[in-house]
Amino acid sequence: MEGVFWCVMRTIEWLNDSNSVQLIDQRLIPGRMEYLLIHSASEMVNAIKTMAIRGAPAIGVAGAFGMALEALLYETAPEETFQKRLHQASEELVNARPTAINLAWGVKRLLSIVDDSSLNQREKVHRIVEIAREMAEEDVATNLRMAEFGASLINDGDTIITHCNTGSLAAVDWGTALGAIRFAHEQGKKIQLLVDETRPRFQGARLTAWECQQYGIPFKVITDNMSGYFLRRGEVQKVFYGADRVTANGDVINKVGTYMLSLAAYSNEVPVYPVFPLSTLDMSMTSGDLVPIEERNQEEVVNVSINGEPVYPKDVAARNPAFDVTPHELITALVTDQGICYPPFSQNLPQIIYNSKSGR
Amino acid sequence: MEGVFWCVMRTIEWLNDSNSVQLIDQRLIPGRMEYLLIHSASEMVNAIKTMAIRGAPAIGVAGAFGMALEALLYETAPEETFQKRLHQASEELVNARPTAINLAWGVKRLLSIVDDSSLNQREKVHRIVEIAREMAEEDVATNLRMAEFGASLINDGDTIITHCNTGSLAAVDWGTALGAIRFAHEQGKKIQLLVDETRPRFQGARLTAWECQQYGIPFKVITDNMSGYFLRRGEVQKVFYGADRVTANGDVINKVGTYMLSLAAYSNEVPVYPVFPLSTLDMSMTSGDLVPIEERNQEEVVNVSINGEPVYPKDVAARNPAFDVTPHELITALVTDQGICYPPFSQNLPQIIYNSKSGR
Repeated sequence: MEGVFWCVMRTIEWLNDSNSVQLIDQRLIPGRMEYLLIHSASEMVNAIKTMAIRGAPAIGVAGAFGMALEALLYETAPEETFQKRLHQASEELVNARPTAINLAWGVKRLLSIVDDSSLNQREKVHRIVEIAREMAEEDVATNLRMAEFGASLINDGDTIITHCNTGSLAAVDWGTALGAIRFAHEQGKKIQLLVDETRPRFQGARLTAWECQQYGIPFKVITDNMSGYFLRRGEVQKVFYGADRVTANGDVINKVGTYMLSLAAYSNEVPVYPVFPLSTLDMSMTSGDLVPIEERNQEEVVNVSINGEPVYPKDVAARNPAFDVTPHELITALVTDQGICYPPFSQNLPQIIYNSKSGR
Repeated sequence: MEGVFWCVMRTIEWLNDSNSVQLIDQRLIPGRMEYLLIHSASEMVNAIKTMAIRGAPAIGVAGAFGMALEALLYETAPEETFQKRLHQASEELVNARPTAINLAWGVKRLLSIVDDSSLNQREKVHRIVEIAREMAEEDVATNLRMAEFGASLINDGDTIITHCNTGSLAAVDWGTALGAIRFAHEQGKKIQLLVDETRPRFQGARLTAWECQQYGIPFKVITDNMSGYFLRRGEVQKVFYGADRVTANGDVINKVGTYMLSLAAYSNEVPVYPVFPLSTLDMSMTSGDLVPIEERNQEEVVNVSINGEPVYPKDVAARNPAFDVTPHELITALVTDQGICYPPFSQNLPQIIYNSKSGR
């Protein structure tokens, strides 16, 4: 499994033979690696909700694939049924993780084909599948561009803190923040990573640690509440993480804990770099505080044990917000697939979008 | 066990009949409640190192009891052996948790009797045991005074975040920060507690949650990285925690995570109150950055599992600093057994010590 692993497989992949989608069940890593076969939008909704697949770019593609699967299932249905079912599916998919914008972005891009009256139903289905598959390919290219921009900010000898999982497992391949770190590592830069474990679901400990083992990136894991200790002692040069949604003012909505990490970095003059594709931008929101934050089941918090003994007393209630908002003031620069964006973000983000659309 | 629990037992207690010390093995809570019987300084060192007993006030008393047990064991030994053994034991006890100052404080208070040439050996042993037992009684009285001062800062309707365990289990009884919260609760103030789980050893989830269940204090648990989310949304009015050492400038050394929590509170204008007895003060240190921070075994970080599946991949290395430094600028006021101390701390802490010594 090791070493060649990432050359031969992808986190999420369209299987042409069977018109189904294969994805790595991330709930089982690092214990074992199993694939989940998905045949419909509702199976995809379930995979996203239960976090068998997670990570902003990955669920963007998952949403698109969910639409494509559903379109194929209803290819020969009456037009009204087809339209109704695909609109329903799009809502179910978007609501599976309401905070992440890439999911909505992927789904909406395909919904526009459903509503395109210039195409007949068969053409729509064909186009939807085609575009969904293109999006998966684009994701890899987009991530590689981001990785290169991000790596340009990393120096030989840097110690970097990263939060959650933003590697290949969070995307089709490469990922966002961890992609940049991996790119720098492959450029031969000597880096040290402090991977925070990312409670409650331990994406850092489970997924990022496991990916770093595959890539040979030197790392140690810390608990989330330790990053302040290392930042304050001057042992860290940079903080890199991903984003689930970025608003027009540059506020970053990302996995819970990102805000406290950013605050500790900012207070100790350590630069903070979110890495994300432009599809993560939500220019319709003027501030991160307007974004609804998903609160997940408390079971995710209380289900831990040590040496077989439950950690939590019985009947303990927990809160479980999945994301938090990092205000743009704490952020040094936003790393996108179209370049690095410096403050003032509300001025420079529209510029970077304009440049990308005009092909500059 | 519930309800009357705290009326009938103590976290650590001298058993007169058997000249031994009984303590609650805190590693087993909340799964079960078992006592550990301690007969010597080296057994006490082991109990402290493995955190069968922990919490600044509790290990202060544990240190003193360890000295008393050793004095009794060597009561009839030749003078040179007695002196040598007790000096050795004092070092071993102090080094069991090098960052916590109460441990050193308790041990050193008894070492001065060992070195008192006006007493014969029997008198020394008698006096050591007597003082150690007095210290345990004093601890309860001290904590109650602190609890009352702390409770005066808590308003009806407050939501409070607390870190680690600072309740009865962290002391002989009552404790520090959680003592103040319990006192306010018993005064009839309606409070809501957000208990952060306190990775890596989960003292919040295991011990504070369990204590809150006993006292009927309404609470929910959160992961450590969530407190910023709630603080930023204005859902929290106060932050209370304990201290393992406080330096002359008011810097607070406490369980790792305290710094990030304090920073998030400060940045959102939520008051931060460390609660500790004056014995936690180390006026010989001018700044928290001079205090050596204990780094514990990485096993404590990586040994978690979910539904029986290990969370961490095999052979993952972790860092595990047990404490961090919260700079005094982030602290609203220090709550001690001799009153509430406001900034500037380097000026007002000596005043509070002077007042306590002159009996004002």
